[in-house]
Amino acid sequence: MTRIFNFSPGPAALPEPVLKQAQQELLNFRGLGVSVMEISHRGKEFMDVAEQAEADFRDLLQLPDNYHVFFMQGGASLQFSMVPLNLLGEKSTADYLNTGNWSTAAIKEARRLCDVNVVASSEDTNFDRIPALDTWKLSKDAAYLHITGNETIGGVEFHEYPDLGTTPLVSDMSSTLLSRPLDVEKFGVIYAGAQKNLGPAGMTIVVVRDDLVGLARANTPRLLDYQVYADSGSMANTPPTFAWYLCGLVFKWIKSLGGLTAMAEINSRKAKKLYAAIDESNYFTCPVAEADRSWMNIPFTLADAGRDGEFLELAKARGLLNLKGHRSVGGMRASIYNAVPEAAVDALIEFLREFEKREA
Amino acid sequence: MTRIFNFSPGPAALPEPVLKQAQQELLNFRGLGVSVMEISHRGKEFMDVAEQAEADFRDLLQLPDNYHVFFMQGGASLQFSMVPLNLLGEKSTADYLNTGNWSTAAIKEARRLCDVNVVASSEDTNFDRIPALDTWKLSKDAAYLHITGNETIGGVEFHEYPDLGTTPLVSDMSSTLLSRPLDVEKFGVIYAGAQKNLGPAGMTIVVVRDDLVGLARANTPRLLDYQVYADSGSMANTPPTFAWYLCGLVFKWIKSLGGLTAMAEINSRKAKKLYAAIDESNYFTCPVAEADRSWMNIPFTLADAGRDGEFLELAKARGLLNLKGHRSVGGMRASIYNAVPEAAVDALIEFLREFEKREA
Repeated sequence: MTRIFNFSPGPAALPEPVLKQAQQELLNFRGLGVSVMEISHRGKEFMDVAEQAEADFRDLLQLPDNYHVFFMQGGASLQFSMVPLNLLGEKSTADYLNTGNWSTAAIKEARRLCDVNVVASSEDTNFDRIPALDTWKLSKDAAYLHITGNETIGGVEFHEYPDLGTTPLVSDMSSTLLSRPLDVEKFGVIYAGAQKNLGPAGMTIVVVRDDLVGLARANTPRLLDYQVYADSGSMANTPPTFAWYLCGLVFKWIKSLGGLTAMAEINSRKAKKLYAAIDESNYFTCPVAEADRSWMNIPFTLADAGRDGEFLELAKARGLLNLKGHRSVGGMRASIYNAVPEAAVDALIEFLREFEKREA
Repeated sequence: MTRIFNFSPGPAALPEPVLKQAQQELLNFRGLGVSVMEISHRGKEFMDVAEQAEADFRDLLQLPDNYHVFFMQGGASLQFSMVPLNLLGEKSTADYLNTGNWSTAAIKEARRLCDVNVVASSEDTNFDRIPALDTWKLSKDAAYLHITGNETIGGVEFHEYPDLGTTPLVSDMSSTLLSRPLDVEKFGVIYAGAQKNLGPAGMTIVVVRDDLVGLARANTPRLLDYQVYADSGSMANTPPTFAWYLCGLVFKWIKSLGGLTAMAEINSRKAKKLYAAIDESNYFTCPVAEADRSWMNIPFTLADAGRDGEFLELAKARGLLNLKGHRSVGGMRASIYNAVPEAAVDALIEFLREFEKREA
């Protein structure tokens, strides 16, 4: 079997040891004679899987006791609706920072449900940076401020999170959660689709501070109310059990590598060397402002966009897959999540140098 | 490896050939060198999986062209909200038939979103039957009538569906869809959580007649609007790709057995022999009226409920698993979905006879 280096932005590469364990026990989970997919979510065996996954997740993030962890469906996109439905309470306005495609999508959905104040936007510079904190025009009475911790498409990431006083900070962390330590106490709500660093598509993890649970609007559909997840341990209906199990295996794998501090060291090293190679080159360019460059998604362009197709074909022939940039921005993008090994980045750097030489 | 006979009500048994294929290609899907879980939902390879699954599903049900098929998240329980949000339009009332736990749950959620008229209920007889059609008190101007095609907990199933004229018929088919042929044209909407006959938990399949798409209330959260799924081919956000892939394998497996006519023959034979064994016995009783007995979920009680624990332990020792009835009704329940082989039913019948003899 030939595995390749997979730079997919999501659904993204999973750790090979996780896939191997899942494969090995796919038809016979813990000697039960059935798959983990074939057992009741309320039975002792699956409850053990679910609880262990939550415990490991809490442990990795050093999560304070006053935060809930919810395992749910619908992806980050459903959180674009759930955040306003759950957090507005008596208020009518929410603040949003616009740093790219995903912020824009969150804003668009929130506008259907409340008054949105865009505190700042980097749209004028093609979303190449995070607007400087001192330019943000915060509302006096916003229910919350929503940011996108990492823009998967634009490759813009927060490396330090603001302190907002009493306004709850809400962050879409889909492509950065568990890639490094996080000071959770700065946040009211954190959410992430699993399909980048946490597990397979079809699972969403939402972290909510206690006091923000139970505020949902009266007509909120039941499964969109955080309180329902708090009351049921995320089992108000049948959860995506296999995805939950796989997330649990991923959490164990991260712990085995040394937890988030170790992940951050590896991820920062991977990102730094790839940015350095791009910056040193005369052929490749990264459009993102240096201070805000993502450790996870690294967009870059070729001097001659007419050679994009050739680049992708040669890369594929070398076993470097899924480097095409998002259809909305073009160019290339290397997504180097936790499960993408350093060897993949090294191989990509080598390929960039060779491709540039061909062009010279 | 020892596989056992798994009577789980859901997440339920999956066909062994499906699990084996998934296992075999888990790390290397179609020679790509990566898992089917690790590729973009918008890439050619996954689009092929998605389209083939829909084509096979349509083929199995002989679905007319004027019906959409949506692959989504949230389970049947999210449909309890989505059905009223999408179908009410200008109307304020919806009709519901109450045949058990799942009807009751659907009614409870609908009451939060509209006026509900319960056309008939079998609660007085402990949900042991479907109320006779001539007793249903239909509204003059209901947006739709909601029924539960099969009550997974109560074991009550429609064997013929009513013809309602112009009022759209909506049915929760979670535990019966693809277990037998279905005259889809009688319905406006059909929905089913996958984790019984279709695939793993975390996928919901919704079939909607064209004219019922595009009617959602103005403030409906985006991912709860059927129109969004119609416009995007169920890819408005990242779908649960592995679950979609597994559903596709299950559809192929059903086709390989001869499609729904063949499934119905097998399922009816399995159910008939198990009911016969229960009825012939002086120790076991099925509480459901004969005409409405489910082919999928067969509840039964022991003459001495004090021996329930002993029954379950002995069954387990024989490799007959997950026979415990739902916590809300007690007793036993054998869920004998498509993937539960006839040999499992034969083994259960043999065990029932032996257990009764022990008691004699």
